[in-house]
Amino acid sequence: MKKSWSNPHTVSFARAVADFTSRRDTPCDFLERCIETIERDEPRVKAFVALDLDNARRAAQAATERYKAGRPLSMVDGCPIGIKDIMATRDLPTEMGSPAFKGWRPGHDAACVHALRQGGAVIVGKTVTTEFAVGFSGPTTNPFDAERSPGGSSSGSAAAVGGGMLPVALGTQTQGSTLRPASYCGAFGFKPSIGALHTAGIHPLSTTCDHLGVIGSTLDDVWQVASHISLRLGSPGYGFLSGASETLPAPAKPKKVIRLYTHGWSEVDAVSAAAFEGFLKTLGASGVEVIDRDNDKRVAALEEVLTAGVSDALDVVAYEMKWPYEEYVEKFGTVIGERVRGLVERAREMTPDDYTSLLRKRREVRARFGAVARDLGASCYVTLSASGPAVKGLAYSGSRAFLVYGSWLGVPAFSLPLLESDGLPLGVQLLGAADEDGELCASAHWITTSMS
Amino acid sequence: MKKSWSNPHTVSFARAVADFTSRRDTPCDFLERCIETIERDEPRVKAFVALDLDNARRAAQAATERYKAGRPLSMVDGCPIGIKDIMATRDLPTEMGSPAFKGWRPGHDAACVHALRQGGAVIVGKTVTTEFAVGFSGPTTNPFDAERSPGGSSSGSAAAVGGGMLPVALGTQTQGSTLRPASYCGAFGFKPSIGALHTAGIHPLSTTCDHLGVIGSTLDDVWQVASHISLRLGSPGYGFLSGASETLPAPAKPKKVIRLYTHGWSEVDAVSAAAFEGFLKTLGASGVEVIDRDNDKRVAALEEVLTAGVSDALDVVAYEMKWPYEEYVEKFGTVIGERVRGLVERAREMTPDDYTSLLRKRREVRARFGAVARDLGASCYVTLSASGPAVKGLAYSGSRAFLVYGSWLGVPAFSLPLLESDGLPLGVQLLGAADEDGELCASAHWITTSMS
Repeated sequence: MKKSWSNPHTVSFARAVADFTSRRDTPCDFLERCIETIERDEPRVKAFVALDLDNARRAAQAATERYKAGRPLSMVDGCPIGIKDIMATRDLPTEMGSPAFKGWRPGHDAACVHALRQGGAVIVGKTVTTEFAVGFSGPTTNPFDAERSPGGSSSGSAAAVGGGMLPVALGTQTQGSTLRPASYCGAFGFKPSIGALHTAGIHPLSTTCDHLGVIGSTLDDVWQVASHISLRLGSPGYGFLSGASETLPAPAKPKKVIRLYTHGWSEVDAVSAAAFEGFLKTLGASGVEVIDRDNDKRVAALEEVLTAGVSDALDVVAYEMKWPYEEYVEKFGTVIGERVRGLVERAREMTPDDYTSLLRKRREVRARFGAVARDLGASCYVTLSASGPAVKGLAYSGSRAFLVYGSWLGVPAFSLPLLESDGLPLGVQLLGAADEDGELCASAHWITTSMS
Repeated sequence: MKKSWSNPHTVSFARAVADFTSRRDTPCDFLERCIETIERDEPRVKAFVALDLDNARRAAQAATERYKAGRPLSMVDGCPIGIKDIMATRDLPTEMGSPAFKGWRPGHDAACVHALRQGGAVIVGKTVTTEFAVGFSGPTTNPFDAERSPGGSSSGSAAAVGGGMLPVALGTQTQGSTLRPASYCGAFGFKPSIGALHTAGIHPLSTTCDHLGVIGSTLDDVWQVASHISLRLGSPGYGFLSGASETLPAPAKPKKVIRLYTHGWSEVDAVSAAAFEGFLKTLGASGVEVIDRDNDKRVAALEEVLTAGVSDALDVVAYEMKWPYEEYVEKFGTVIGERVRGLVERAREMTPDDYTSLLRKRREVRARFGAVARDLGASCYVTLSASGPAVKGLAYSGSRAFLVYGSWLGVPAFSLPLLESDGLPLGVQLLGAADEDGELCASAHWITTSMS
């Protein structure tokens, strides 16, 4: 599918590494090309809260020397990367998109940042986030249309990657914050299973829904960065991302996929819907069987449970926000945005029994989500990543309707930038069973290769 | 059993509340009695890193007014409490027992501190911890013998409670850090099941072994404080402490208990061993059947697995210390103590497969620990909390041999100050099945009442 929004400047780091090894390219030159795009487009896109080009150049120089010596530190050595501004960094402020944290310096690196730095990655800057990854939006614009939202909350990370400023950037997703901006900005997005990546040092919103996500210019880039973070540090009590490795899992053609028609479909415009139907048709023509609620009752029943879970998902988030947001509201008052204050209020009305029941229900639905796919012999679920292309205006970062399930259940999900709607990018979302990230990536690999 | 070390100044807050309600006492007067003891003994005991008596008096005054109005905020309203200095506090420094964090102010409260403050508890000060709760010892002395250790790492919390300065203080336990100092200082200690209490804002050592613990002058005090923290905030993904409530679970006489003879027994002196045998004899005389490795093969087999797990337990801790301690060592060099640096080195030699296998093995042993007790119809395991009374000197905070299993497996454990050895306190340790804290507390209640 030819896409009018394809950005020629978008560069894959994963694919550049061979050129470093053969000395046709260097991490320094790669970084300079990124900086060129940043310097040209940043005044319009506003993806960054802070840039640290001096340090980035020093890190790229060190990586260049290691490649020259034939001793790169890791698969991300020399990779320029953007860090969402709710992740602690030792050398740059971490402001959470909130005036309450203006100029705040944690003095240490979040676990994911530490893992990247240890692997030789080049930290280019901090990227714009909505307030605490849930509240009001930042100034970032969509790289393909400055009148439209880049999506949120990982706004700056997605805009930087989609706009070709960086090959990869870190995001988070508590409800829809990695895959929606990835979809809006034409990038690949990966939200691993809950717990699969170390989240310490990322400012918490809702511990059991907060996922570290990766946004990248290719599937290889997101997979390698997630794999490196996992293999370098592990995740306490969880272990390692399923299938984590230096190379993408081999493409695996799904025999069957389950198409989800959850409640978000009522929001989808005709052009976006047609684009998705076209995708399914191509998938079907390739010999992949598409199951949906019309031809399987278990899928229909599961969809009802998922739709009923939307409110539960927000209740879980609200309850877990009691700490530290109750204190923030007490201390900072209306400096804290209305949405955050509203969620803290929502939590006040909940009892321990409410939260206990939310946790039990989620465990059940999570198991069922995996079981339905297994019983039907389906490799994954497919749906849209967003209800359409990037929304107009910058105040609203878009609907979470297609993403909230995956975040609530903590199952792995990818957004693949395979569709176009209104001349803008739109992502196909794949979801898999919990803790089967590697299997899902193999399906994503096949679908990306076959459908691009 | 009469104990020569009993401290007449030790006061229970849980038992004082009735007097607040009937106006025979007030939180202000209660606090002043604590302050009197602190002012008299602190120069010798050195339990505190920082005291904030002005704020404490203000908080006690507010609590006093609430009791007068018949509207206390919670079961801990007005309770003076000490906070281990690895827990973030908004109004006091948090120095981790490390010169690298001298004067550090996180600016917010850890979840447990927030929960206590919301309930009206009176934060009196920050208590001495060993370096990052694992490294070199602080200046605190044992309240019963200034030449002896108070135990570590929750040294100041245990000394403050054992010395009658406070009714209750928070500690943590990653290997032995709550129950050992509780044992050395003649206090009650409670280390709940892993995950049962919210640990956010407590400086991490090893996420899957770090337990928030409570040290108190009575079982009621430790239970109420743990229950309040649990019910006020919950713990993300876990829910609530089993049996959490305003009142202690009713005493439940165990039909059977399992006596553990794990490897720590080789360290026990004759007097301490005799004290424990006397305790078991009394227990037996009360009609409680004591099972041990000599009369049950499953217990013997379990003990072998537990002893083999000691090294695993430390490996888990070391691996999870990679973040943030690799960065600390890089940044602060030898300002970081030798033991911490050694653990970071230990982690460097471990692979992802090693950590994966550690997690799998632990899950198996944890399930078995519960199953053996269940199969034998035993209410709990009993053993010592330490290999003897407080060790001499302040440099070494004592052996972890009796405590490491409970921390590794994340099962609930109490230390009950029921024994005496060498004129000093020594704790009896009870351990239960994972997530059955309320049941274990009911046994602890019966044993404490019957054996005191």
